[in-house]
Amino acid sequence: MKADVFSDHRHDGSMRLVADQAAVVVVDMINEFCKPGGKMVLPGYETIVPQQKAVVAAGRRAGLPIVWVADSHRANLRRDREWVKRTPHCVEGSWGTEIIDDHQVLPDDRMVRKARYSAFFQTDLDLLLKDNLITQLIVFGVVTNICVRSTVHDAFFHGYEVVVPHDACAGTGDREHRSSLYDIATHFGTVCASSDVVAGLADGAQIANQVMEA
Amino acid sequence: MKADVFSDHRHDGSMRLVADQAAVVVVDMINEFCKPGGKMVLPGYETIVPQQKAVVAAGRRAGLPIVWVADSHRANLRRDREWVKRTPHCVEGSWGTEIIDDHQVLPDDRMVRKARYSAFFQTDLDLLLKDNLITQLIVFGVVTNICVRSTVHDAFFHGYEVVVPHDACAGTGDREHRSSLYDIATHFGTVCASSDVVAGLADGAQIANQVMEA
Amino acid sequence: MKADVFSDHRHDGSMRLVADQAAVVVVDMINEFCKPGGKMVLPGYETIVPQQKAVVAAGRRAGLPIVWVADSHRANLRRDREWVKRTPHCVEGSWGTEIIDDHQVLPDDRMVRKARYSAFFQTDLDLLLKDNLITQLIVFGVVTNICVRSTVHDAFFHGYEVVVPHDACAGTGDREHRSSLYDIATHFGTVCASSDVVAGLADGAQIANQVMEA
Amino acid sequence: MKADVFSDHRHDGSMRLVADQAAVVVVDMINEFCKPGGKMVLPGYETIVPQQKAVVAAGRRAGLPIVWVADSHRANLRRDREWVKRTPHCVEGSWGTEIIDDHQVLPDDRMVRKARYSAFFQTDLDLLLKDNLITQLIVFGVVTNICVRSTVHDAFFHGYEVVVPHDACAGTGDREHRSSLYDIATHFGTVCASSDVVAGLADGAQIANQVMEA
Repeated sequence: MKADVFSDHRHDGSMRLVADQAAVVVVDMINEFCKPGGKMVLPGYETIVPQQKAVVAAGRRAGLPIVWVADSHRANLRRDREWVKRTPHCVEGSWGTEIIDDHQVLPDDRMVRKARYSAFFQTDLDLLLKDNLITQLIVFGVVTNICVRSTVHDAFFHGYEVVVPHDACAGTGDREHRSSLYDIATHFGTVCASSDVVAGLADGAQIANQVMEA
Repeated sequence: MKADVFSDHRHDGSMRLVADQAAVVVVDMINEFCKPGGKMVLPGYETIVPQQKAVVAAGRRAGLPIVWVADSHRANLRRDREWVKRTPHCVEGSWGTEIIDDHQVLPDDRMVRKARYSAFFQTDLDLLLKDNLITQLIVFGVVTNICVRSTVHDAFFHGYEVVVPHDACAGTGDREHRSSLYDIATHFGTVCASSDVVAGLADGAQIANQVMEA
Repeated sequence: MKADVFSDHRHDGSMRLVADQAAVVVVDMINEFCKPGGKMVLPGYETIVPQQKAVVAAGRRAGLPIVWVADSHRANLRRDREWVKRTPHCVEGSWGTEIIDDHQVLPDDRMVRKARYSAFFQTDLDLLLKDNLITQLIVFGVVTNICVRSTVHDAFFHGYEVVVPHDACAGTGDREHRSSLYDIATHFGTVCASSDVVAGLADGAQIANQVMEA
Repeated sequence: MKADVFSDHRHDGSMRLVADQAAVVVVDMINEFCKPGGKMVLPGYETIVPQQKAVVAAGRRAGLPIVWVADSHRANLRRDREWVKRTPHCVEGSWGTEIIDDHQVLPDDRMVRKARYSAFFQTDLDLLLKDNLITQLIVFGVVTNICVRSTVHDAFFHGYEVVVPHDACAGTGDREHRSSLYDIATHFGTVCASSDVVAGLADGAQIANQVMEA
């Protein structure tokens, strides 16, 4: 099957960020997935941190709410459906659920704790965003193909415009990273470099959608 | 980044289907995505139909509810968020939203109409399944990396055990097909051949999870 | 306990309808609940129909979407949770689920089928409204204290401004009708006469909130 | 309109609690709604505390999870939809959101923070219950006609069997308290005395449904 007749039917036009309608959503930059001693550590997480810090700083300058999403599972469950599939991890209140100290969480930032891959599933993220009159989301973090992507799915379904800076994300592997970015660019939102987001927040510049072909 | 330290933390054990707790969910085998004249036709859809028919037939023999999911968008919306991203398609009541006549929909089968990629988003699918005491889903259709995958995400989040027969699915491209199956096998459910599902329904045989490495 | 120190902490200010942000939601004006032969007939439903028709007509003149909500339960469920509590009713496709012929449903009107008391629960109502850029709902029908009220709850939770014309609603009894209207006026939205809605749609007049004390 | 032809179509049969499928859900027994200095204090809250303690103690003896629900609103929202309707209250982290010290919260108890009247709306309550294999809920607290009732609505919609001990609840007024209990008994669950719940947990005794006529 040739790639990609189906996905040709798309609108890849650029988008513009609007500061008072946008928010930054940082997914799962927590000890459990990044730091030595974590239960499921992604090698090389540190290569994406500088770009993340640049986007967060640009967001703060433009007055965007910064939302830190952290995986966090209830203790003592009789059956955690996710742990049936994955190694037990991110027990609520544990070191693993804390944001890595590479990042600085400020008092006015928002924390959202989730127990499934999507930051929207049974959390107050949508409510928090709606009550801040947000319609655009800048989403990045780890891992591209699971928690970032699951969050992007739900953001799109709920009606948000979504931008994903690809160099602020890491996947479980190169194929999965690129394939999820391709699906996001063709079906869910806009994929760009973090420098595009920084520029777009500074001066309202258009952000072009990058489709990563196979 | 080597593939895939992160996803090593997984439970790939086999699973067993239990007839009175399982349902078949066929995603978007509709004219719009399959037949000449459709708005977004996936070339080669016909190669997956025989395997789909085998699973549906096995499901019927075992007494499973058969759920046909069809994309269907309200007419006359002021802004369809999905059509901002994709070519307008699947207007409610149109030929495009009908199940392809390769398949036979029986009177006791269930129809679920959805307006986003996931068959769970703002539909009664979860309610229909719960009120039928279903805990296991056999999910397949088109396209692997968008509507099938989005449905698998939500099925897993809602607590269902999910099985995806890979040869009853088609993706927008080979990389995307394989990458989504990899993500499903490592994070969301069990990937197998359709013949494994047929056997599992016939005699309760274990179904092994197949992880498609890059 | 004196009524009502708690509910004094409220904002009873008037509201204004904005035609291109508002929609009419008519709840369960169906044969099963109104007409001879229905499974659960509410005596006296016909006394609220003229006011309902006046609001629907005013809505049409102002260009509002008209949404007809009809209770409709899947056939052949292994366990319908609602039917554990209530007489079986409103089987999908049956006469009971049709809008009463006192009302005229036009081709551009929207139908929403629900299987629980709230018109939002596992339906596409929220999506339909969002994609029509709706933020205000005029909700009425039967019965005030169950399906109308449940729909008002969810509308408020989802962020809609809600107006309920009390004389276009009927409850299972006078106490329940008045008590639910009191709760709606103090906690969920604005209660008024249907003539206030008609006037508000015609000329943007303010609509005062009516709190029905015990 | 005579009360209550409509609600005659009901199943008022008794129910039995099953210890390993049941949980206790205590709604909003927090400083803001109970104690001097709270923003919306319900007079007489202390009359329901002894019955609440009896049910919680019986729940602990039978091994039930105890879930404490506390209203808690994000700080610094641009528009809190609930505060448009009600006095600002229950800011996250404030004294007002803490469980009253009449009750003892133990380390293994669960806390659920909500920002709308229903404890299910955009919280992880349903996930927490499902992953503890819970199907029955004992729900009580303040106020009967708003947060308790809203929680009961959603519990029923999600498929839980709900029991409400009426003397462990207080409403904003007598009419509203009784009217909501009537609606719960006729449409959503079982209403009984707290002593019935205590007995039911101790020996599996049947719990009869009490319908409070007007």
